[in-house]
Amino acid sequence: MYKHKIAIVGATGAVGTVFLKMLEDRKYPSELLRIFASKRSLGKKIDYLDDHLFVEEIQEDSFFDSDFVFISATTSISESIAELAVKSGAIVIDDSSAFRLSEEVPLVIPEINSKDLTAHKGIVSIPNCSTTPLAMVLACLTQLSRPLRVITDTYQSVSGTGSAAVSELLNQSKSVAVGKEVLKDVYPHQIAFNLFPHIDDLQSNGYTKEEMKMVLETKKILHRPDLEISATCVRVPVIVSHSQSVHIEFENEVKVDDAIEKLDNFPGIKILDDLNNNIYPTPLDAAGKDDVFVGRVRADSYRSNILVLWVVTDNLRKGAALNALQISDSMIEMKLVV
Amino acid sequence: MYKHKIAIVGATGAVGTVFLKMLEDRKYPSELLRIFASKRSLGKKIDYLDDHLFVEEIQEDSFFDSDFVFISATTSISESIAELAVKSGAIVIDDSSAFRLSEEVPLVIPEINSKDLTAHKGIVSIPNCSTTPLAMVLACLTQLSRPLRVITDTYQSVSGTGSAAVSELLNQSKSVAVGKEVLKDVYPHQIAFNLFPHIDDLQSNGYTKEEMKMVLETKKILHRPDLEISATCVRVPVIVSHSQSVHIEFENEVKVDDAIEKLDNFPGIKILDDLNNNIYPTPLDAAGKDDVFVGRVRADSYRSNILVLWVVTDNLRKGAALNALQISDSMIEMKLVV
Repeated sequence: MYKHKIAIVGATGAVGTVFLKMLEDRKYPSELLRIFASKRSLGKKIDYLDDHLFVEEIQEDSFFDSDFVFISATTSISESIAELAVKSGAIVIDDSSAFRLSEEVPLVIPEINSKDLTAHKGIVSIPNCSTTPLAMVLACLTQLSRPLRVITDTYQSVSGTGSAAVSELLNQSKSVAVGKEVLKDVYPHQIAFNLFPHIDDLQSNGYTKEEMKMVLETKKILHRPDLEISATCVRVPVIVSHSQSVHIEFENEVKVDDAIEKLDNFPGIKILDDLNNNIYPTPLDAAGKDDVFVGRVRADSYRSNILVLWVVTDNLRKGAALNALQISDSMIEMKLVV
Repeated sequence: MYKHKIAIVGATGAVGTVFLKMLEDRKYPSELLRIFASKRSLGKKIDYLDDHLFVEEIQEDSFFDSDFVFISATTSISESIAELAVKSGAIVIDDSSAFRLSEEVPLVIPEINSKDLTAHKGIVSIPNCSTTPLAMVLACLTQLSRPLRVITDTYQSVSGTGSAAVSELLNQSKSVAVGKEVLKDVYPHQIAFNLFPHIDDLQSNGYTKEEMKMVLETKKILHRPDLEISATCVRVPVIVSHSQSVHIEFENEVKVDDAIEKLDNFPGIKILDDLNNNIYPTPLDAAGKDDVFVGRVRADSYRSNILVLWVVTDNLRKGAALNALQISDSMIEMKLVV
């Protein structure tokens, strides 16, 4: 059944690990896989189904037999490798911000804009892990009325930074619990029992790069350069799943019940909304699941064209690995790859 | 110097403990203090300066010699005790939501509306711990232009729930770290490495009581029934300090530099805003401090009459105990108490 050869760059990282797990769940044949990672992991043996995979070093000819090259490492690794992979005839599906805003690179969430894949020139980008759920909610609700303005404040887990940040959160939490000195390495501030409105560097307009990713990527995916979006991105002491509080101003009135119905019927979105029974999305419940979970859907108290919602998604799955895999599925289905 | 007799109800709770600490810092004479708490703490000896205080049980005549009765317990305790204290001739300064919206009860943040104290009839309420910093920022910026609409998404620490919730967070964090079963008691969901948009009960309009406290209390304090406020209140795994991302739409254009200048000069507000040097308010840094800290002040990218800011405050100090103490100071200064 499966025949495409896949190379995974960053296979031992937070997203790469989830990506491999998803391939295992599909029983994707190990013979079709090659895994690459940083020098630190070279030669490392990774259990995969009843087999093993060995971490390889990237070389000039690494990708000559690959159909897809998934990259989830650093932006500079994506920048230095993508062209090599494309020259080798592979399609690159890239998790970094390196190419997301390039005109010749489709930025795709298959539920929304798989059509954009037809214009690919070898590289396809997946959106930032906080962009994807926001764009899905907006795309869905556009069926009811055109969104004009969006405010989102995020609650982003440390796995968005990578595995080292997960260790840092857990180690710091242990240190605080037993009264030991708290060591910092990944973040400039203690993250255990703390949080900060600082993800990625500051831009000249006062917003961080992460905040501007949400703004610019969402506009591109939705083909809505006119959409006004304002984001505040906050790192919180959570291991997996990004949450966000979203306020959407529409062109016309939107009723809560209509929004809930549309959201619950949109592919990849699931409603969890019954606060009286303590039901609403939480990061812990969303972790390891595929859906974008939405709850606390309510109307603004003053204006009938504004809705408020609470959105939670596993940042490693739909926020990254799952979306990447769905892109390759779509490209195969659309016969964009032989 | 000090002569007023103070009774503290809920003296062993999260806020009560901070309140006593603040009196200790002032070297307030122990002879002028009486402390009350739940039956569980009856007779408990609390170290205070070079002396001790003993936890008493509330009785009919407990407050006959008190000038001020500070209550920080549950709403139902406030409801059952306040009248008794007023009848005894004391002034009640209440931390619960029991009386905050009553017309005959001033709801006061001294930096904003100490004038309202003159109309008191024995009870003065202090605002919810998330309301106070928001109202201070809005009162300050009103000097530049009239706020018309406010959106706030909060990141509220567990000490807002009380000491039992602090223990629950710490115990759960330890359990996760060592792989033990996580026990839940205070919250319906695990709070360690998790968060949820659920503080207090659901109202019929889809907002929680906590969210509506922020809305209704802010309007009352600012005497602005027309102000549009929308809040999403989220509990996060932080021990002390509440954070919030605030979006303010003004009547006219407001420049970032002017806002920063006004905020930094407002009593009780301090600006921390230099992201390139990792400077912005965090809950850990704000804990134990008196100020409302503001950072990430920036303009909306599309509209010159909208500002976005990040606000962090120790919920036990300015959010509760400090504000209560400032109210009694103001009443003494205004000669509203003999």
